Amino acid sequence: MITGHVFIATSLDGFIARPDGDIGWLLARDDPTEDHGYDAFIATMDGIVMGRGTFETMRDVRPWPYSRPVTVLSASLRQSDLSADLTGSVQVTAANPEAVMTGLQAEGRARVYVDGGQVIQSFLRAGLIADMVITQVPVLLGAGRRLFGALQADVPLHHEGTRAFPSGLVQTRYRIAA
Amino acid sequence: MITGHVFIATSLDGFIARPDGDIGWLLARDDPTEDHGYDAFIATMDGIVMGRGTFETMRDVRPWPYSRPVTVLSASLRQSDLSADLTGSVQVTAANPEAVMTGLQAEGRARVYVDGGQVIQSFLRAGLIADMVITQVPVLLGAGRRLFGALQADVPLHHEGTRAFPSGLVQTRYRIAA
Repeated sequence: MITGHVFIATSLDGFIARPDGDIGWLLARDDPTEDHGYDAFIATMDGIVMGRGTFETMRDVRPWPYSRPVTVLSASLRQSDLSADLTGSVQVTAANPEAVMTGLQAEGRARVYVDGGQVIQSFLRAGLIADMVITQVPVLLGAGRRLFGALQADVPLHHEGTRAFPSGLVQTRYRIAA
Repeated sequence: MITGHVFIATSLDGFIARPDGDIGWLLARDDPTEDHGYDAFIATMDGIVMGRGTFETMRDVRPWPYSRPVTVLSASLRQSDLSADLTGSVQVTAANPEAVMTGLQAEGRARVYVDGGQVIQSFLRAGLIADMVITQVPVLLGAGRRLFGALQADVPLHHEGTRAFPSGLVQTRYRIAA
């Protein structure tokens, strides 16, 4: 069965970006000499799902930073809106989370990196997330785009591990309880 | 100079209580065989400041659980509203955070436990919090009363330590950067 996996950083007050999408506060605290485990994480994934917002912030980055096929969830974006060099590695879909995952499974994918606040929230509500690696950044922003949102019911978690870095980042792994 | 100190638990999505104030989700995950450090923390405090909401949930608890003088911040509650057995250990005030702390300092107090979401937020905005011990509970609630709120500016933090408990609680200590 295909599973969704989260690897994301938030401020201590739970924001993944400022209201305008800015992540300078995060980049300023990202010590490049520390290995926060993204490469090891992504090596175990065979697909990436993101929202339009995340895609828009990345679409002009070259070299294209994703080494796995990317699925962009959007009701407004079209496949024909992609720049030519991305059409082979990015697929745009308006399908709902369940249908997206069913489609990816039919393509033979098993472990999908789910990125972006809105998409993570909708995948959590649909029960499609297996585990989350959350890195807390030592700052309070007071406002911004939240990682978590409304739920129909509590989501109990199993704590699997925590490590703190000299930079002050605290990374915790949770498995979503069955 | 008098300082404010926070010791509080939140869900992973940042709530200290459900919308109706319920903390059953927290109590259900509090393993009484684990020492989360509250006794050691409170032993270093010489006063407690809380909001009316926190006070209302505690006012009928006997024996009275607080071993330090309690100051309740409220614009509506009166000293005469207190039950007779609390008048010696609880003081009600409508003063603002700065004036409350100035008054406590004049009484000879130096380290104050600041409790309750609204009060912590107002003390953070006033720059009156020196450090915070935050214990994250492995559950997403989706809605409730938030620990953190709006700020006039970023609050940078220094990470001082993290420990994880077998119950899945993750406790992190932060000092508010100068």
